[in-house]
Amino acid sequence: MALIVQKYGGSSVADAERIKNVARQVAETKEKGNQVVVVVSAMGDTTDELIKLACQISEQPGERELDVLLSTGEVISSTLLAMALGSLGYKAISLSGVQAGIFTDASYSRARILHVAPKRIVDELDKGNIVIVAGFQGVTEGMDITTLGRGGSDTTAVALAASLGAQVCQIYTDVDGVYTADPHLVSEACKMREIGYEEMLELATYGAKVIHPRAVELGELYNIPILVASSFTDTPGTIIHGGISMEVRSKVRGIAHDLDVAKITVVGVPDQPGIAAAIFEPLARANISVDSIVQNASVNNITDLTFTVARSDLAKALSLIEPMAKSIGARECLGDSTLAKVSIVGTGMQNTPGYAARMFRALYEQKINIQLITTSEIRITCIIAESRVEDAVRALHRAFELEKAQV
Amino acid sequence: MALIVQKYGGSSVADAERIKNVARQVAETKEKGNQVVVVVSAMGDTTDELIKLACQISEQPGERELDVLLSTGEVISSTLLAMALGSLGYKAISLSGVQAGIFTDASYSRARILHVAPKRIVDELDKGNIVIVAGFQGVTEGMDITTLGRGGSDTTAVALAASLGAQVCQIYTDVDGVYTADPHLVSEACKMREIGYEEMLELATYGAKVIHPRAVELGELYNIPILVASSFTDTPGTIIHGGISMEVRSKVRGIAHDLDVAKITVVGVPDQPGIAAAIFEPLARANISVDSIVQNASVNNITDLTFTVARSDLAKALSLIEPMAKSIGARECLGDSTLAKVSIVGTGMQNTPGYAARMFRALYEQKINIQLITTSEIRITCIIAESRVEDAVRALHRAFELEKAQV
Repeated sequence: MALIVQKYGGSSVADAERIKNVARQVAETKEKGNQVVVVVSAMGDTTDELIKLACQISEQPGERELDVLLSTGEVISSTLLAMALGSLGYKAISLSGVQAGIFTDASYSRARILHVAPKRIVDELDKGNIVIVAGFQGVTEGMDITTLGRGGSDTTAVALAASLGAQVCQIYTDVDGVYTADPHLVSEACKMREIGYEEMLELATYGAKVIHPRAVELGELYNIPILVASSFTDTPGTIIHGGISMEVRSKVRGIAHDLDVAKITVVGVPDQPGIAAAIFEPLARANISVDSIVQNASVNNITDLTFTVARSDLAKALSLIEPMAKSIGARECLGDSTLAKVSIVGTGMQNTPGYAARMFRALYEQKINIQLITTSEIRITCIIAESRVEDAVRALHRAFELEKAQV
Repeated sequence: MALIVQKYGGSSVADAERIKNVARQVAETKEKGNQVVVVVSAMGDTTDELIKLACQISEQPGERELDVLLSTGEVISSTLLAMALGSLGYKAISLSGVQAGIFTDASYSRARILHVAPKRIVDELDKGNIVIVAGFQGVTEGMDITTLGRGGSDTTAVALAASLGAQVCQIYTDVDGVYTADPHLVSEACKMREIGYEEMLELATYGAKVIHPRAVELGELYNIPILVASSFTDTPGTIIHGGISMEVRSKVRGIAHDLDVAKITVVGVPDQPGIAAAIFEPLARANISVDSIVQNASVNNITDLTFTVARSDLAKALSLIEPMAKSIGARECLGDSTLAKVSIVGTGMQNTPGYAARMFRALYEQKINIQLITTSEIRITCIIAESRVEDAVRALHRAFELEKAQV
């Protein structure tokens, strides 16, 4: 008897009919002789509506209270799914994050899971129940409700799969797998049958929306295979795991793109120790994530420092950076929010030269200007004008012959 | 420094504006130097909407799941009130039934409070917080969420007041106090400044909607003064307590009426031991409440047995009673759902003759036929035709000169 953890996203449980569909799918998994734990998100727009309600009450709702408020969305969908299974004749029980034993730190709105104490889940499974867990939430040691922030329900599912020793964690969503590029942009994009954790982590971090990087990271850490598939179709999805066959490794696997990019350049920075810290510390204190930091070689001990932030953070970041830049003698601060990232990802790149050159040539042939380049061992990212993203993704997909990828 | 428990009903927290109003009222109480614990109901129609949602999923939603679902309504309003207080500059924290330590039995949808473990509430008060508790809910020893059923939030408030040793429990609702009769029926009805627990219990049980009898009972048991007042006006409300002054006792205090009445008469019942038990046991098993049981003097060892139930229970009660009646040799079962109860209540009646006669004469003068009479030490109830209720209440209000009552 295998234990399977399934997760259904907000669009999969958006109304009563869809919840009944999910119930049938869960029941099928149970009928095959499995123990089943299901993690659900809040129905459709529930979370947005609750946030709207909070904003009617207070311009800056307290974050502890906001977390309790938002956590009700997933509790509601979990009870409804349990009822739907009950009316199909299955024993099912809903558990909140507290009841499921998901303990987190006290960072409201972006809590990290510290440990899972799944005794109640195990007891209910032993009684023959299908266990429905409200995703996206946990509880502190002091018994306060927290929410996990972005990718929360995916993370709940993988964390439960890890702590229960599940055979697989199945993430059901509104897309049917991981593609070599966004199929909305590239009609020849191919669905991958499988992909390694590292590659998926890079793709997800650099713009692929199908699963949150946090959940992938956790899957890799505990070696839990993660299936990404559609709850609306029966087509097979993509399995994310560690044991990828050798041939598949020798390639660029996919193209990611991300429009949520803004660039800040501090021009004319004196090249001396402590300057970078002086610039980035205020951003860290304001909880603004910075990525793709580039510092040019200095001329006459003067250099330029460029980095990217999420677009929604641009204004705040500039307001923090500008006085700092002035005080250290920099010439000016420039912000630009008309940019995008395109990335190629593949473990095959690791020891093989020529991938960067091929990428740059493909962009050059489209007359796409590259503003910034960053790399990891298995990824190359170029920052380009937002208006050229489609052309860039298509050109790269062709250049690396991804239309010939396995389906 | 006094500790005050306040309760706000669903109409008082129906939308963002009303929640802000409640926040201002709570803040005023805090400003007077009190510690404040607030119990809230769900916003407006939330509970009905959640029930509708459950019914779209399942014709018979499991009661454990339904309780978890419904409990979210009060959690939502509790967080919103805490946010509203926060934005007024007050420290406030919301607690669910679980966090507030309200332990109940496992009778889902109508759980009884077993005990309150208010440690968390006390800790938060000690930190200077206004504590907002989600009403209507509790938790079993096994950590499952329960709801308290009718009058749930009133009961939460009084139970908390008792366990915290509060000075007073203030119930804020959409009426501004307890009247000598329903002011919608009797324009001269007067608001009472105070009323005793026993009288309030009879009035509430026999139709006055202003507070649930369960909460009054609990108030009496722990001797907690209960103020009933409006959250929409500043007019003083009615205080329910034990130490009513002697003069006030010597009167009929109020008239209650109740339209939710159906009568069942089992005709031609053999007058022998065990018959009443045989008739009422199936009703008890079906959880149907029976009141006003009357058995006439028997003639030739044959009698008639009449009792009342809630109208919504009539069809089910008849279906249970009819086969039973047949098997014990009764002639027939008659059901009637066009009835109502009118009651006069007052501890002053206890040792004073003449009240019953005055009541019967007042009804007789209006040509109102009395179908059934039941009495307690401080109450006389007549069952009459529903169509004559208004006339009856007005006539009784005049007959006992309640328009002269204190305001």
